[in-house]
Amino acid sequence: MDIVKKPRIGVIGGNHAGPEFLDMAREVGRLVAGRGGVLVCGGLGGVMEAAARGAKEAAGLTIGIVPGNHPGEANPFIDVPIATGLGYTRNSLVVMNADVVIAVDGEYGTLSEIAYAVVFGKKVFGLGTWDIKGVVRADGPRDAVERAFAALGRN
Amino acid sequence: MDIVKKPRIGVIGGNHAGPEFLDMAREVGRLVAGRGGVLVCGGLGGVMEAAARGAKEAAGLTIGIVPGNHPGEANPFIDVPIATGLGYTRNSLVVMNADVVIAVDGEYGTLSEIAYAVVFGKKVFGLGTWDIKGVVRADGPRDAVERAFAALGRN
Amino acid sequence: MDIVKKPRIGVIGGNHAGPEFLDMAREVGRLVAGRGGVLVCGGLGGVMEAAARGAKEAAGLTIGIVPGNHPGEANPFIDVPIATGLGYTRNSLVVMNADVVIAVDGEYGTLSEIAYAVVFGKKVFGLGTWDIKGVVRADGPRDAVERAFAALGRN
Amino acid sequence: MDIVKKPRIGVIGGNHAGPEFLDMAREVGRLVAGRGGVLVCGGLGGVMEAAARGAKEAAGLTIGIVPGNHPGEANPFIDVPIATGLGYTRNSLVVMNADVVIAVDGEYGTLSEIAYAVVFGKKVFGLGTWDIKGVVRADGPRDAVERAFAALGRN
Repeated sequence: MDIVKKPRIGVIGGNHAGPEFLDMAREVGRLVAGRGGVLVCGGLGGVMEAAARGAKEAAGLTIGIVPGNHPGEANPFIDVPIATGLGYTRNSLVVMNADVVIAVDGEYGTLSEIAYAVVFGKKVFGLGTWDIKGVVRADGPRDAVERAFAALGRN
Repeated sequence: MDIVKKPRIGVIGGNHAGPEFLDMAREVGRLVAGRGGVLVCGGLGGVMEAAARGAKEAAGLTIGIVPGNHPGEANPFIDVPIATGLGYTRNSLVVMNADVVIAVDGEYGTLSEIAYAVVFGKKVFGLGTWDIKGVVRADGPRDAVERAFAALGRN
Repeated sequence: MDIVKKPRIGVIGGNHAGPEFLDMAREVGRLVAGRGGVLVCGGLGGVMEAAARGAKEAAGLTIGIVPGNHPGEANPFIDVPIATGLGYTRNSLVVMNADVVIAVDGEYGTLSEIAYAVVFGKKVFGLGTWDIKGVVRADGPRDAVERAFAALGRN
Repeated sequence: MDIVKKPRIGVIGGNHAGPEFLDMAREVGRLVAGRGGVLVCGGLGGVMEAAARGAKEAAGLTIGIVPGNHPGEANPFIDVPIATGLGYTRNSLVVMNADVVIAVDGEYGTLSEIAYAVVFGKKVFGLGTWDIKGVVRADGPRDAVERAFAALGRN
């Protein structure tokens, strides 16, 4: 199947996170790849790295949109690193390149991505993240991924 | 006094808002200018225009950082329109150019600006806006402006 | 071989070009893919599309960094479209994501990319493009691609 | 006269330049301000600082669009510093905010700005800068400024 036709699932969350959130993110990554989704994330550490690691464990493709000038700043589980040189301003590009978004934990950078996701008309499913209007709370990684694919009409 | 030494107060909020929020924003703009602050906003309509109108009524200086390619897209109360061509991604630049932020009403664009404000270490005071950690609720325009200047050590 | 370890060859040029330049760009794309390079371009028509078409003919991977908000705006030969929402300002991101650059024809958008390539320390090889310091003129697609790979220490 | 109605003259050039170019830039700044123009530049050192210094000597207003996250990174002759956090990618914003552009000396950053100026439909007058199509060579600061204002229909 063409890469370009695969659904793109954004996984957003902080550069640092507790082990339970890293486990969740990794499981989300595994499930996304298992269903044939492409993982899109911010390409750095923490939740981003755990999700990408999970996706690679399930032989998925991973895209990481990083803040700096060098693709090499991406974590080692990113197949296609994209450098932006935009700093934090690159957050909007992460969700712009996803069809649907799963937020795991996260602080204000993640909040900016949730906000942009809604602005761009993308559904957001949450795992232990901001409890605000616009985020649909999911019951664990499997539920989050199932809802995400269902939101795209692919279940 | 040099323009560059004046405190910059960001006023954020939607392109559309109800009359009570527009009145609040205009009063915020008046009070910011009355205290010698420079108003920074997104330069478009709604809360942005009302705040800029208020600032001009008090003979203040207004900066509007607009999403499109043309400075002329700014509302008529902006003295210094700055075009970015970045679309919604310009939201981070609005708060990056403020020393402190007052949020009036607003939806997800405003939420992205609140998030970026915290990321950039700016205090956020809120009037009828997102009730989340990181936003200090103010009791009306006067309270918001007093707290904003106090947060800068200028009261 | 891991995608991320493959050299990335940027091909830059206009959204419209004469048939001789489109042929050159397509041949450049074929040769880049034939040598195991990933093609990076601006994702739109003209030279960008011809180069991506050539790369797909040789079973290569193509990345297109597009100006608008939607990955779907990329030409049909792009495997990994990246939306930026930055308009023309995305030009710097195209060359930021290439290890070396081949310019085919082109006008002022291409000139901005040549300039950024040099700013970012990337070598630029030219085919019928701007004849300025910083662009090494190549004798046809094969010569351009050979020199590009040689510049990366992979020949 | 309203600030917003004043013509905006972009002065572009490198962060480092020889004394003869710094003198030229300063004289350009003085003449731009003397004719009621607002000076727009990249806000850093070299040609940008010299032009802003000249504009302030003639009591003009200066806008500096800087690459980093902090308005305070602007040179001391900038009245309205605008932080972008975009790094070199901010170059397009400098010329986007000018009605006409004068290039003094400069290397590849300046070349990117010349290219964007043409893309955005702005006339470019040059003093000791890139000798390429799209740059009209001027005979000294006075000639450059006169031609720039004439190009705006204000002479």
